[in-house]
Amino acid sequence: MNTGELVEIGQQLRVDSIRAAAAASSGHPTSSMSAADLMAVLFARHFRYDFDRPDHPANDRFVLSKGHASPLMYATYKAVGAIDDEELLTFRENGSRLEGHPTPRRLPWVETATGSLGQGLPVGVGIALAGKRSAHDDHRVWVLCGDSELAEGSIWEAAEQAAHEHLDNLTAIVDVNRLGQRGPTRHGHDLDAYARRFQAFGWHTVEVDGHDVDAVDRAYGEALSTRGQPTAILARTLKGKGVEAVQDREGLHGKPLPEADEAIAELGGLRDLRIRVAQPAADGTPPVPHTGRLELPRWDKGEEVATRNAFGEALTALGAARGDVVVLDGEVGDSTRAEAFAKEHPERYFECYIAEQQMVAAAVGMATRGRVPYAATFAAFLTRAHDFIRMASVSGSGINLVGSHAGVAIGQDGPSQMGLEDLAMMRAVHGSTVLYPCDANQTARLVAAMADLDGIRYLRTSRGASPVIYGPDEEFPVGGSKVLRSSGSDRLTLVAAGVTVPEALAAAEALAGEDIAVRVIDLYSVKPVDRETLRTAAEETGCLMTVEDHHPEGGLGDAVAEAFADGRPVPRLVRLGVRTMPGSASPDEQLHAAGIDAESIAAAARLLVGEAIVP
Amino acid sequence: MNTGELVEIGQQLRVDSIRAAAAASSGHPTSSMSAADLMAVLFARHFRYDFDRPDHPANDRFVLSKGHASPLMYATYKAVGAIDDEELLTFRENGSRLEGHPTPRRLPWVETATGSLGQGLPVGVGIALAGKRSAHDDHRVWVLCGDSELAEGSIWEAAEQAAHEHLDNLTAIVDVNRLGQRGPTRHGHDLDAYARRFQAFGWHTVEVDGHDVDAVDRAYGEALSTRGQPTAILARTLKGKGVEAVQDREGLHGKPLPEADEAIAELGGLRDLRIRVAQPAADGTPPVPHTGRLELPRWDKGEEVATRNAFGEALTALGAARGDVVVLDGEVGDSTRAEAFAKEHPERYFECYIAEQQMVAAAVGMATRGRVPYAATFAAFLTRAHDFIRMASVSGSGINLVGSHAGVAIGQDGPSQMGLEDLAMMRAVHGSTVLYPCDANQTARLVAAMADLDGIRYLRTSRGASPVIYGPDEEFPVGGSKVLRSSGSDRLTLVAAGVTVPEALAAAEALAGEDIAVRVIDLYSVKPVDRETLRTAAEETGCLMTVEDHHPEGGLGDAVAEAFADGRPVPRLVRLGVRTMPGSASPDEQLHAAGIDAESIAAAARLLVGEAIVP
Repeated sequence: MNTGELVEIGQQLRVDSIRAAAAASSGHPTSSMSAADLMAVLFARHFRYDFDRPDHPANDRFVLSKGHASPLMYATYKAVGAIDDEELLTFRENGSRLEGHPTPRRLPWVETATGSLGQGLPVGVGIALAGKRSAHDDHRVWVLCGDSELAEGSIWEAAEQAAHEHLDNLTAIVDVNRLGQRGPTRHGHDLDAYARRFQAFGWHTVEVDGHDVDAVDRAYGEALSTRGQPTAILARTLKGKGVEAVQDREGLHGKPLPEADEAIAELGGLRDLRIRVAQPAADGTPPVPHTGRLELPRWDKGEEVATRNAFGEALTALGAARGDVVVLDGEVGDSTRAEAFAKEHPERYFECYIAEQQMVAAAVGMATRGRVPYAATFAAFLTRAHDFIRMASVSGSGINLVGSHAGVAIGQDGPSQMGLEDLAMMRAVHGSTVLYPCDANQTARLVAAMADLDGIRYLRTSRGASPVIYGPDEEFPVGGSKVLRSSGSDRLTLVAAGVTVPEALAAAEALAGEDIAVRVIDLYSVKPVDRETLRTAAEETGCLMTVEDHHPEGGLGDAVAEAFADGRPVPRLVRLGVRTMPGSASPDEQLHAAGIDAESIAAAARLLVGEAIVP
Repeated sequence: MNTGELVEIGQQLRVDSIRAAAAASSGHPTSSMSAADLMAVLFARHFRYDFDRPDHPANDRFVLSKGHASPLMYATYKAVGAIDDEELLTFRENGSRLEGHPTPRRLPWVETATGSLGQGLPVGVGIALAGKRSAHDDHRVWVLCGDSELAEGSIWEAAEQAAHEHLDNLTAIVDVNRLGQRGPTRHGHDLDAYARRFQAFGWHTVEVDGHDVDAVDRAYGEALSTRGQPTAILARTLKGKGVEAVQDREGLHGKPLPEADEAIAELGGLRDLRIRVAQPAADGTPPVPHTGRLELPRWDKGEEVATRNAFGEALTALGAARGDVVVLDGEVGDSTRAEAFAKEHPERYFECYIAEQQMVAAAVGMATRGRVPYAATFAAFLTRAHDFIRMASVSGSGINLVGSHAGVAIGQDGPSQMGLEDLAMMRAVHGSTVLYPCDANQTARLVAAMADLDGIRYLRTSRGASPVIYGPDEEFPVGGSKVLRSSGSDRLTLVAAGVTVPEALAAAEALAGEDIAVRVIDLYSVKPVDRETLRTAAEETGCLMTVEDHHPEGGLGDAVAEAFADGRPVPRLVRLGVRTMPGSASPDEQLHAAGIDAESIAAAARLLVGEAIVP
């Protein structure tokens, strides 16, 4: 395809972007028009992809980090023949595959959902990293970024990891169109400002006129020939390029063009040109990770083991059995115990340093390449990546997150290190699974089970040692629970998980000495929750008391309440949880101060069986 | 104080850091020892502060971004005479002011809670920015950072804002001790690597041997004389400096020294030297922001107004009445409507570009200087700042957060832009207030009311227009609710908030036509929740159905369930919420697909009054 044809393709992409937005009466055509030439040259000249086989292992990957430029993406799909014009004009309709922001839930050629800015490049780094660390993965990753989104710190976490890992298979194309949503960006058309930043982080940079297709072509060539470091192409463009009424003007973000027909005429009218995308370079044999027999670690009842330790050991065993398991950690592997995996399987361990957003993004990227990632840090610090976790669920991504140091039980380190909101955060993620084991054998089983679930899987682990209460052959289905103590005369059910399980058992024992029989349920599967067992307990005991090392909102108490939120009769309910801001203190002092230790549980239970209100 | 004395002070700070950690049997002495000389020189030679008047407006400010070096902070407090040796040795004890990580809840000289890395510098930027924009605020801000935490993207959001705002009153001191928690950092002792990054972002940089007190002194002087840009001092240091057994060695992070007595002897033993900190340069008259009569905007019943518009107008009116109100926005002020404030009060409006972490951090920083900040972006994108919000609550900070574009009701833009987890996130924050208005007059009142609350205040606004149902003189106490429809024969209560209020009213109207009387409650105060009204409704109607434009976990449904979580009898409960992953569609289609429109509510209500389970 020659220069003139590339120019024509660019115009077609603009026209089709305008048409799609006009049909929808919404969308971002001006943000699409600035990048049209960049896309035309990339897809016509450099991108290698089999649109009939999105799962081809040697396909290049494209990520639209500026996800609002979806009209451009869909116009490109039309130009390559992946969708037809009729579908293009369904943009943003109810049921259309062409959503306001592209997602892989609907379209097989989309790697990751975007639309929350600053996330596409971080995920692209994960995809490229998976490629670099595998002999079978011969692909390049191209990410189209906006200039506004470079203000997100996550971009610089990504830049740091990409350069550190020498990802010369990664190219960031920055559409520097000068205008953000509400006006000029910080740096306007100062390409040097961006180049200095990328260079400082170790990237090769190329500055280019983003509307000069030959120059853009040369820039891509330079990226392809750069070795040992990723390349950022900084392209000077004009928002709304090609249509005088909107070009380079403020106040036109996210709006269809006011006079679409005139604009299309100004761009030379409709075209039906076709881009022939090059096929992937390598053959299409997918890599087959090794599989072997899983031999999980085993502990004897009565041993004292921290669930974080059990996590580390179980993960290492899982890694031995499955070659597709990879592990990422936020520079706390000695605390989360992910370092156990690192020692045995260093080639599948990714040190992400203290950059939790990038850690989760890299996991999402690796999952697109068939990896089964486990990403671990302190539960408290996973909140740093909340928006990435949310977007991973929009993607339908399958990743495992592990949060250690949950709750006040960590002790002296104080509230900054305590995960007290993580259950609420993870439960509210659509389609998530939330697991909170209380002993080592249970942890090991759940670590293995979560690998094959759909969606976002979360495992919460604890810092301190706790008694092993289950045998190594006990099974723990996701969505299940364990009734640890019950009788026909139970007057109350204690529902606990994690560190509160031993406390609840001790409370039950103390109460038994006072002839108060209580049931104890270990609700290790916080989501999905075992409605049946909870409902039986409600019918048989009449009241449920949840005990959690978490703030009272959104956690275990809510999970139990939701089991009765369908109109059926509801038992009496009590929530014990962390209602104050903790300080430093020993773990035992912390549990007592929060009112979730055995003594506090027993005291609340006495009130409840006396049919009093629990303050 | 001469060179020799400064060296001695540094040694004293090391010895006292070791002693504090030894007394606690935990803590981070080696991370303290690397920065001891940096602190000695700063506090003895450059820092201006009245320890008897932490609220002195002309005080310099110090932020310990590497919060785990708290022993060093407390050793410094002892050296300046703010605490005594006895208190120093209460480090990390239950009830001690000297927590594992410092927080202003306990200590008046601490500006902001740290311990989640990468947050101190961002907050410091906010403090410095408040100073720069006010004639009365003559102070410098000094932030001691670790090298590991420079991997956090939030650091680069801060770097960007600080340079863009020409914060020459801000100095970042980076303790480059080469070792993170689990081993070497990415860049080790390569000071140039950090200098290149800061320079690229527009900072002045100084590289220095962090154990050469004269060189450090000159570096601080250079920072003080640098105009027009912030300064980063990159100090080469050794972790555990001064004690051979731990100096520059791996595996010793976060651990007391193995042989404390020998280490103290090696450092020359105990000292009781005193630092005389210079007094603030300016006088201590606190700035008095102007106050005037608040004239909130008023709307007539029946008008159609988006609550985000009402927010923008009310905020502008509040800004006219109160000079302490400042507004921050994440480059979406035209969407959140914060731009209305910007037009009237540009000197108190802070464009944070697309950097939500920095936006929240800057708000926290400004609040330390007596400002009443409102920080706004899409509700979905506030998840980006979750860890900052969490830490703000650890600080006891008083900030207002406003999330627009809540829920599926935004329509075509799709799930990436929909706040569907924000209520869960904000409710689980300790001490938070969560408000979700349904009409314009209610919004205006709540915008004004939230200004004077304690803790983290959250207001959720909606994109589309909704009918004004309240008169402009109606009052909406925080913690209250409004019973919009009730009768003696109500068989069910619909509990709604925001966009679901008109839907619930329409459903009630339809049901009334079928002789099914239902109560409708507008639960605009999601936290604290109006327990009394809910309990009365439960007693009188027997069942409560919550209807929310949010995922079913942690939001309105949970807020209502928690009102009954003290052992009292619980009504039948049903939660209607967003249980699927939405795509693009019109707002009406979205509400219907999610099952939270009037028709779906009525259908569920019919099942419930028939005593059936609602699927």
